[in-house]
Amino acid sequence: MLSNAMKRILIIGAGRSASSLIQYLLKTSETENWKLVVGDLSLELAKLKINGHPNGKAIAFDIANQVQREAEIECADVVISMLPAFMHMDVARDCIRFKKNMITASYVSKEMQSLDSDAKEAGIILLNEIGVDPGIDHMSAMKLIDEIRTMGGELTAFESFTGGLIAPETEKDNPWKYKFSWNPRNVVLAGQGVVKFVQEEKYKYIPYHKVFRRTEIIEIEGFGKFEGYANRDSLKYREVYGLQDVKTIYRGTFRRPGFCRAWDIFVQLGCTDDSYEIEGSEDMTFREYINSFLAFHKTDSVELKLMHYMKMDQDDVDLFEKLEWLDIFKEIKIGLKNATPAQILQLILERKWTLQPEDKDMLVMWHKFNYILNGEEKRAESSMVTVGSDVINTAMSKTVGLPVAIATKLILQGKIKLTGVQVPVVKEIYEPVLKELEDYGIEFKEKFH
Amino acid sequence: MLSNAMKRILIIGAGRSASSLIQYLLKTSETENWKLVVGDLSLELAKLKINGHPNGKAIAFDIANQVQREAEIECADVVISMLPAFMHMDVARDCIRFKKNMITASYVSKEMQSLDSDAKEAGIILLNEIGVDPGIDHMSAMKLIDEIRTMGGELTAFESFTGGLIAPETEKDNPWKYKFSWNPRNVVLAGQGVVKFVQEEKYKYIPYHKVFRRTEIIEIEGFGKFEGYANRDSLKYREVYGLQDVKTIYRGTFRRPGFCRAWDIFVQLGCTDDSYEIEGSEDMTFREYINSFLAFHKTDSVELKLMHYMKMDQDDVDLFEKLEWLDIFKEIKIGLKNATPAQILQLILERKWTLQPEDKDMLVMWHKFNYILNGEEKRAESSMVTVGSDVINTAMSKTVGLPVAIATKLILQGKIKLTGVQVPVVKEIYEPVLKELEDYGIEFKEKFH
Repeated sequence: MLSNAMKRILIIGAGRSASSLIQYLLKTSETENWKLVVGDLSLELAKLKINGHPNGKAIAFDIANQVQREAEIECADVVISMLPAFMHMDVARDCIRFKKNMITASYVSKEMQSLDSDAKEAGIILLNEIGVDPGIDHMSAMKLIDEIRTMGGELTAFESFTGGLIAPETEKDNPWKYKFSWNPRNVVLAGQGVVKFVQEEKYKYIPYHKVFRRTEIIEIEGFGKFEGYANRDSLKYREVYGLQDVKTIYRGTFRRPGFCRAWDIFVQLGCTDDSYEIEGSEDMTFREYINSFLAFHKTDSVELKLMHYMKMDQDDVDLFEKLEWLDIFKEIKIGLKNATPAQILQLILERKWTLQPEDKDMLVMWHKFNYILNGEEKRAESSMVTVGSDVINTAMSKTVGLPVAIATKLILQGKIKLTGVQVPVVKEIYEPVLKELEDYGIEFKEKFH
Repeated sequence: MLSNAMKRILIIGAGRSASSLIQYLLKTSETENWKLVVGDLSLELAKLKINGHPNGKAIAFDIANQVQREAEIECADVVISMLPAFMHMDVARDCIRFKKNMITASYVSKEMQSLDSDAKEAGIILLNEIGVDPGIDHMSAMKLIDEIRTMGGELTAFESFTGGLIAPETEKDNPWKYKFSWNPRNVVLAGQGVVKFVQEEKYKYIPYHKVFRRTEIIEIEGFGKFEGYANRDSLKYREVYGLQDVKTIYRGTFRRPGFCRAWDIFVQLGCTDDSYEIEGSEDMTFREYINSFLAFHKTDSVELKLMHYMKMDQDDVDLFEKLEWLDIFKEIKIGLKNATPAQILQLILERKWTLQPEDKDMLVMWHKFNYILNGEEKRAESSMVTVGSDVINTAMSKTVGLPVAIATKLILQGKIKLTGVQVPVVKEIYEPVLKELEDYGIEFKEKFH
């Protein structure tokens, strides 16, 4: 048994995005008198993250093992689930039963939302969407929204972009200026389905095969230009942020300029399709894979056929260089059996887009609000750029993990008293979290025009 | 009770494609001593098709009414199901139980195929795919394949196109040279999913958003040029036709040249998407619908935005005329609640693409085989064009209904003796059917080069 004074935190899942989270909690445990239990299917991984800290304990943990799950949750004070979103529900139900607070960085699913009244009755909080996109975006946007409303401004438009990219020093020699700092599969499949948003009170729809050509360029002082493409899910933010009357609402993803047009080549070819398997993929080469999307010709090269099909000009050298740099025209064996086009593309990209020990990633966020104040049209912007410390303490790991960690502390300290299913759009949560994030260099610059 | 000599035919479904079928069977009943029972949910429609013929009997028929279904099937000698494919199974199982032959013009589903041994045991035939595409295409292709093989030729490539179009005299003043002679919804959704085919022994894949730009032009003597786009399902014909060793196999759909590029505008905009509902569709106009796929602009017209987005040149007048002719830029109310983009497009098209009393349709089919004979590369073509007699006896109704009718006769006469689940790729079926189709002007011209 732990002493009464010692609080116990259970973290489930010790993957990449849990690094900064665990480091913060271990460090804070020294003053706050916490015990940190990190459970993962891989005991080794959990041990690695604890790194011998006296307040840490690594355990092999299988979410499907009900006996273990219940025992661990019952003796915790707060439970953090870093599992994929679809695995939260058993944990959430146990947390209600044992009256334990729970925190996740995932979107609130319908199932999670349905636990709201049960959680309130149990007197606990099920706090979700407190990582980054969703998380820091909610908090920083709501801060600005509340500021504008306090001034008496009436909001008319909201645009918001987030991008997980690479730091300027890592961009060198990489024509895409991009590597994976997030789940590669999700990057390959991003944008599939129809995009919906509202512009000047009109619903607008963009099919997948047009998303990467309907971009806009945004400049962030000191960091240059970024290119934004639309996310699928802009509309739901009207309700979450209380923006039902806003005439324009648009959320998107940042890349560096030129990325989207080149990525669109893969979309147009059909390389991102995950719905069928390529015949004989194992023994195919990268070049043959690309050729399977091009018409047969006796003599024309794959390069020429692709340029012609995609209406590329001879002097589209920046675009062509991006493709060539990925080795897609080389006779390199795929070696992946019964693979979909998207799985093969992921394999090709991972050779070049995997963060190397010397690489640093970068997370960029930007919001823009239009509003009317005293009859005048005004504009406010808020931006944040965070660069990773290294390949473990990435910007992605920090921006996902630190808000979760800070919220955990605030809950244990009794400073967040809310109960039920929550997301961090209320001042009680976003104000102290954003404030402490500044100590870690995660800082928003607000500008009012 | 019917006399022993009188055979009884049950037709289930008296819709558009059953007209020529019923007419043929009624006429032939006079010499063959048949009774023809036409069952449809609408007794009126069944009566209309029987048109007072003494050998015909119209009944109100509900496929879901088991008692009626069993009673009617039990006293029939052959059952023709003109229902949608997914409704055949109850009928097929009853046919096996009561040992009655059954005929459909639909593709063999997995469920249907699974009845093969039961049908053989019962000594009956379940004959499917004997309309047009599938049907006449199978028969005419297999005839040519068998001819080439008999000569000693070795097949290397097979291409085949079918198109339900309009007769040249109906094309006038219609810039699309197209109207619906088939299920409009299927036309709007045609091509969705990925296209797979084999060219020079290589698998080739075309995503939906490229299908209508990867066309080829084929000329048929006396009827001018046609434009073919690829069907989804070329590969399965290798097995059906015994063409496992053929290096190229490609099946497609015919339109008149220029159709596909204009249709592709709708695909690119996202108008053919059937996966989500347009907000407030009921009160929208055609123009607002088109505008919902275009970026917002304060002053630019919908026309200009569309031309720019689709990279149309000022002198792409033929293309632009097609769009304008459909009234898509007009402020006409949609009036359809919670409609998907595809449903709205169908509504817009039906105003212009519905066959009028004075219109005639046209069915076009074309096969090309490459083969090696005595070490030499050879080519054979087979083509058929059928023009509808009027808006009831359409080419579509004739080419679907007459092969079904002729096969029914041959089965009743004991000239087709096959049992089990069959498609008309065997000489015993295709030879007499194709021969008699010639009497109705459905005739293939074969050319050997």
